[in-house]
Amino acid sequence: MYTHLTNLRVRYAETDQMDIVYYGNYAQYFEVGRAEAIRALGFTYKKMEEMGIRMPVVKLEVNFLRPAHYDENITIKTILRELPDKHEIRFEHEVFNERNKLLTTGAVTLFFIDTQTNKRSRMPADMLAALSTYF
Amino acid sequence: MYTHLTNLRVRYAETDQMDIVYYGNYAQYFEVGRAEAIRALGFTYKKMEEMGIRMPVVKLEVNFLRPAHYDENITIKTILRELPDKHEIRFEHEVFNERNKLLTTGAVTLFFIDTQTNKRSRMPADMLAALSTYF
Amino acid sequence: MYTHLTNLRVRYAETDQMDIVYYGNYAQYFEVGRAEAIRALGFTYKKMEEMGIRMPVVKLEVNFLRPAHYDENITIKTILRELPDKHEIRFEHEVFNERNKLLTTGAVTLFFIDTQTNKRSRMPADMLAALSTYF
Amino acid sequence: MYTHLTNLRVRYAETDQMDIVYYGNYAQYFEVGRAEAIRALGFTYKKMEEMGIRMPVVKLEVNFLRPAHYDENITIKTILRELPDKHEIRFEHEVFNERNKLLTTGAVTLFFIDTQTNKRSRMPADMLAALSTYF
Repeated sequence: MYTHLTNLRVRYAETDQMDIVYYGNYAQYFEVGRAEAIRALGFTYKKMEEMGIRMPVVKLEVNFLRPAHYDENITIKTILRELPDKHEIRFEHEVFNERNKLLTTGAVTLFFIDTQTNKRSRMPADMLAALSTYF
Repeated sequence: MYTHLTNLRVRYAETDQMDIVYYGNYAQYFEVGRAEAIRALGFTYKKMEEMGIRMPVVKLEVNFLRPAHYDENITIKTILRELPDKHEIRFEHEVFNERNKLLTTGAVTLFFIDTQTNKRSRMPADMLAALSTYF
Repeated sequence: MYTHLTNLRVRYAETDQMDIVYYGNYAQYFEVGRAEAIRALGFTYKKMEEMGIRMPVVKLEVNFLRPAHYDENITIKTILRELPDKHEIRFEHEVFNERNKLLTTGAVTLFFIDTQTNKRSRMPADMLAALSTYF
Repeated sequence: MYTHLTNLRVRYAETDQMDIVYYGNYAQYFEVGRAEAIRALGFTYKKMEEMGIRMPVVKLEVNFLRPAHYDENITIKTILRELPDKHEIRFEHEVFNERNKLLTTGAVTLFFIDTQTNKRSRMPADMLAALSTYF
């Protein structure tokens, strides 16, 4: 299992008139979580796109347990439970506030797509090698 | 069953560098869908907040089948399969493009919360009466 | 002078915890205003990009007089005071609420850029011809 | 003069199909810049709202010189040229990319508003005292 933690501070723009983070903005928080989880492996999603692989999202699930508020420094936990062996990868996420209360759980499933052929592809070999040490 | 259709045009702001609508923006599309579905019943979510009931989202699910693109006039179908009899309501959504291709399916579950007491509440009686005719 | 009016309804997502539309979201409202102003001429910005001309924004100005609120059906007025004769075009905007109160004024300046050469270009001839009848 | 630097990484969500950061998203970057500039003085905007002062934006200006791209670690410079002596404060901003190229300049003018009376107010005394040492 590979897990990674990253932090970000809630922006005013991300709140709504219910005085909490708008539910749709967790998709961005999860994006930051998985981008930083990949970066910590010595890769970046940006580099993957430059190599000709893009990763469209095919499924998003979010469970809202407690709200996040403006200016809170939240922690996004990104968890990879299984080493992907095909064209699909599933990141699980947990969001915590500063008092370590669990605010949100969720998951994002993405495909590896070859930008040239537009066909399903796989995780780049280098990234797979780096990840394999965790499984 | 109560179903409602509404349309909106994809904004440039809603696309990302994959030349498609960013996955997190469907939360806004679903919001528009359920707001218009409620308005078509003779209510508005705004009025509900003024009456002291707010509806935080507790669960979001989205399945991405095909991408939506800039300037497409998409249709958001909002489906209420069951008349809520408690503090919870679940809207299902389907998003179609102009050629009637199904792009996205999903669901949003919300609670009715009394703003004063911060406790679980129920759908306002008038809205329930209007909805009941569909079930 | 060419003027065009379009309407949109404020989304919950666009509000912030000050119970008003977040200031950055007017850029999207102005985008909708100028996209619809171009569409009303028989063109679309989408078509322009397909023809090989893109229009990056070079300047944005917004003055906030009164706030816009959730669910308000606002009117975006788009004004073209001068027929562009070079690589630059400036749209002025005014945003009104349902009681016709002026909420916001602003302007967006964009360049016409040839996507192939990445050099400054001009408004497509057909669009210029359609616009000329207003000046 | 008081100046402050902060960094943030461009999110995928913030790009558009022109492969650059959407022009409206700089309002959020400026928000982050001024929030961190205030935090560095020993204050937070959050605390100010809790004290009963909110700061609506009355004017936004942005000049786009060069685009920002996905995953770039940009620097937001926040400059306060004058110590506000009334109800108004003007933050100037400059955005730089990793190679220290100036991407964007701009300014945000805000009012100090007393939340109870809804009247114009002033900068809290403690914040003014902290700022005064820079002027």
